[in-house]
Amino acid sequence: MARRGMLIVLSGPSGVGKGTVRKAIFDQGGNDFQYSISMTTRKPREGEVDGEDYYFVSKEEFEKNIKEGQMLEYAQYVDNYYGTPLKYVNQTLDSGRDVFLEIEVNGARQVREKMPDGVFLFLTPPDLMELKQRIINRGTEDMETINKRMEKAVDEIKTMRDYDYAVVNDKIDNAVEAIKNIIKGEHLRVTRVYPEYQEMLGDL
Amino acid sequence: MARRGMLIVLSGPSGVGKGTVRKAIFDQGGNDFQYSISMTTRKPREGEVDGEDYYFVSKEEFEKNIKEGQMLEYAQYVDNYYGTPLKYVNQTLDSGRDVFLEIEVNGARQVREKMPDGVFLFLTPPDLMELKQRIINRGTEDMETINKRMEKAVDEIKTMRDYDYAVVNDKIDNAVEAIKNIIKGEHLRVTRVYPEYQEMLGDL
Repeated sequence: MARRGMLIVLSGPSGVGKGTVRKAIFDQGGNDFQYSISMTTRKPREGEVDGEDYYFVSKEEFEKNIKEGQMLEYAQYVDNYYGTPLKYVNQTLDSGRDVFLEIEVNGARQVREKMPDGVFLFLTPPDLMELKQRIINRGTEDMETINKRMEKAVDEIKTMRDYDYAVVNDKIDNAVEAIKNIIKGEHLRVTRVYPEYQEMLGDL
Repeated sequence: MARRGMLIVLSGPSGVGKGTVRKAIFDQGGNDFQYSISMTTRKPREGEVDGEDYYFVSKEEFEKNIKEGQMLEYAQYVDNYYGTPLKYVNQTLDSGRDVFLEIEVNGARQVREKMPDGVFLFLTPPDLMELKQRIINRGTEDMETINKRMEKAVDEIKTMRDYDYAVVNDKIDNAVEAIKNIIKGEHLRVTRVYPEYQEMLGDL
C-alpha cells in the first residue's frame, strides 16, 4: 500500500504574494507535489486562466458544493467565495502524492482542523509597511479599504502561531527556495517516517 | 539582545557514520553553526586530533567534570566516557550562534531533557544489514561484540521516536544536504521566529 501523501498548505495575509510565490514554485517544475486548484466566484484578473489559476464558478455552483460537503475549506472575501474542492485532494493523497494548497488564512484554519498533520506555511511580508505599499501599488482599492486590509493583516500575522513555518517573502526566489527546503525537511520528520522503520524492524 | 542560538543534535546508532557525516558538514564550511567538541576517555583512533575530533582526557579528569556539573551529557561505552562540556555550549548559544553536537543516543536523551527545544536528528543506516557490514568492515570487533552491537542498534532505532528528524546515511553527500536543509527549515519554525514578529507588531 502506498504511503499517504503529505498535505502542504501555503497561506498568509492578503497581498503578501502567495499566488506569485506559488506560481514560481510550479513554473520551476521538478516538484514531487501536485497543485490543488482553488475554486472561486470572483472574476478572473487579467491573465488568469480558468482551470489553471482557479476554477471560476458561479455563486450558485459554489454554494451547491458547500451544501453537498464537497469543500475541504472555503471562505468569503469581499463578497466572493474561495475554496478547495475536497475530492481531488483526497484522491491525490491516497495515491501517495503530496498536495500543495495556496489558500487564505480562514481556509487554512479549516484545513488544520480536518487534516492536522499537514505542513502549514505562513508567508509573511518583510514588514507591514511594505505590505501597505504593495496593496496601494496594486491600485485597485481606495484608502478605506487599504486601512481595513492593514488591520486585517495585523490580525492575520497573529494567526501565524497556528502554523508550522513562517517564510518571509522578501524576494520570490528566497521564498521559493525556503518552501522547497521545508517540504524536503518535513519528509524526514520522524512522525512521518517512523512507520516505515517499524516495518523494517519487523523483518528481524 | 541577541536571539539565543539553536542547538542541533546529530545522533544515531554506533557505526552509522555520525562522525563521517559531521566531518563532511564542517569540511564543506559555510555553516552558521559551531561544532561542540566532545570529551572522551577513549584512546584516539588513527588520524584523530586532540581538541579537534575530541578532547581526549583521563578517566579522573572526566569524572571530576561530572562531579562538578560541567557536563551537558555523558555516557559510558565499552568502558570509556564520552560527553559534552556544558560551558562552551551555553556561551555559544547565548551569543546567538547555533551549536552542533554529534553524540551517542544516550547522551542525546540527556540533552533532550535539558534543552527540549533543540533540533534532534537521528542518522540511520539504509538498512540494518548494511550496518552490520560496516561494523564488520571496521574490523576492530569480534563476532560476539558485533552481535551485541546489532541488538543495541535495533534498540537505538526504536529510540528514533524521541527525535525530530530521521536522516538516512545512504550517501554522505545526501545526508549532509538533508541535514543542512533541516537546519535551514528549522530556523523558519513559527515557534522559533514568532517572538521577532511580536516585536514588530509592537511598533504599530
